[in-house]
Amino acid sequence: MKQHLIITIGREYGSGGREIGEKVAAALHIPYYDRKIIDLAAQKTGFHADFIENEEHRITGSFLFNIATGGYPIGVGQPMGLSLTDQVYRAECEVIRKIAAEGSCVIVGRCADYVLRDDFTCFNLFIHASFDRRCERIMAEYSLSRDKAAESIRKTDKNRTRHYQYYTSRGWGDAQNYDMTLDSGRLGIDGCVRIITDTVNML
Amino acid sequence: MKQHLIITIGREYGSGGREIGEKVAAALHIPYYDRKIIDLAAQKTGFHADFIENEEHRITGSFLFNIATGGYPIGVGQPMGLSLTDQVYRAECEVIRKIAAEGSCVIVGRCADYVLRDDFTCFNLFIHASFDRRCERIMAEYSLSRDKAAESIRKTDKNRTRHYQYYTSRGWGDAQNYDMTLDSGRLGIDGCVRIITDTVNML
Repeated sequence: MKQHLIITIGREYGSGGREIGEKVAAALHIPYYDRKIIDLAAQKTGFHADFIENEEHRITGSFLFNIATGGYPIGVGQPMGLSLTDQVYRAECEVIRKIAAEGSCVIVGRCADYVLRDDFTCFNLFIHASFDRRCERIMAEYSLSRDKAAESIRKTDKNRTRHYQYYTSRGWGDAQNYDMTLDSGRLGIDGCVRIITDTVNML
Repeated sequence: MKQHLIITIGREYGSGGREIGEKVAAALHIPYYDRKIIDLAAQKTGFHADFIENEEHRITGSFLFNIATGGYPIGVGQPMGLSLTDQVYRAECEVIRKIAAEGSCVIVGRCADYVLRDDFTCFNLFIHASFDRRCERIMAEYSLSRDKAAESIRKTDKNRTRHYQYYTSRGWGDAQNYDMTLDSGRLGIDGCVRIITDTVNML
C-alpha cells in the first residue's frame, strides 16, 4: 500500500464481512479491528465489554426514548446529558479515530466510514449476500436451525440499520455511501479479498 | 471470458457508466448495447426511436395515471390494455432477452438486471459518483453551466429511480440488488474498467 489508508467494512450479518476483513488485513500486513474496539472502549469508559456490546445496538429509533434515557441524538440540539448508548458510541468514536491515526488498518462496522469521513483517507466497503446464502453461513458457523439463523439475521440487520441511520443519517447499504460494494455469495470470500486487495493496491 | 455472461450496468447520470460499459465491452471483445436497444425496439414496434426514448421515462409513479392512460403496472393484475410507456417497456424487454440469448454482452440501463434475472447468468453492476464529480463531467461533456448540469442530473436520476422502481419494485442503487457497485469518482473510469474486467475474468 502506497499511503496511510483506512479500509472500513460495513456488512450484512452472515455475509462473511468479518472474515473478508481479516483476510484483507493479513494480505496487506495491516492491523484488523472489530471486537477489539469494544475492549478499547471498555478500558476508556470503565464499562464492562459485555455491557458495551449490548449497548451498541440499543437504538430504538425514538427521539423521545433517547431524551427519556438522558440523551439527545448526536447533532440534534445541545446534549444536556448523554444516554448510555450515546456514551458508548462517543467512546468508540474516540477509539476509532485513535487507531486510524496510528496507521493503515481495516475496521469492521461501528460507522467507521462516517466517523473518519473528514479527517482520514478511507476506502469504504459494504459486503452483502442473499438471505439464503447468509442463512447457510450462520447455520454452519453457530450450529443453528434454519429458523433460528433466519431470526438472528433479521434481528441483527435491523439493529445495524437503526444504529447506522441514527448516528449517520445515511441509509445502511445504499451504494452511494461506499466506494465499493460486493456480493460475497456471488463472488466468494476469497474472490472478495482478491478484488479488494487488488483495488487498494491500485489506489 | 469462460461463459455466456451478460454484464448489466445501472448508473447514476454523469457517473461515466456508459463509457465504462463501452470500455469493458471492448476489453472483453463482446457487444455493447445502450441506445441500440431503442433502435431495435423501434423496429419491433413501429414507433419512432425519439418517441421511444421519450416514453422510456414517462413513469409518474401513479397507479391511477397508468390506468387512465390504458395500462396497469406490469405484474399487477391482468392488463386489459397497455399504456404506451408499458408497450415500449415490453418491446425493450423482448429486445434485451433476444440480444442476451445471442451471447455475452454488456447492457447499460433499461432494468436489464431485472429483465434477465431468471433466465440468464448476469453480472450486475451499479456505477455512481458524488454529485460534484458528476456535475463536472456533465458540464464538460455538454458545455453546460453548473446550474444547468445540476438540474439535468437531478431530473435524470429522478426519472431513472421511478422507472426502475416501477418496473422492478426494487430500490435503484440499493447495494443488495447488484453483484458489485463502484464509485467512479473515487476509482476513476479506467480503474472501474480494470476492476470489472479482472472480476469477470475471475468468475
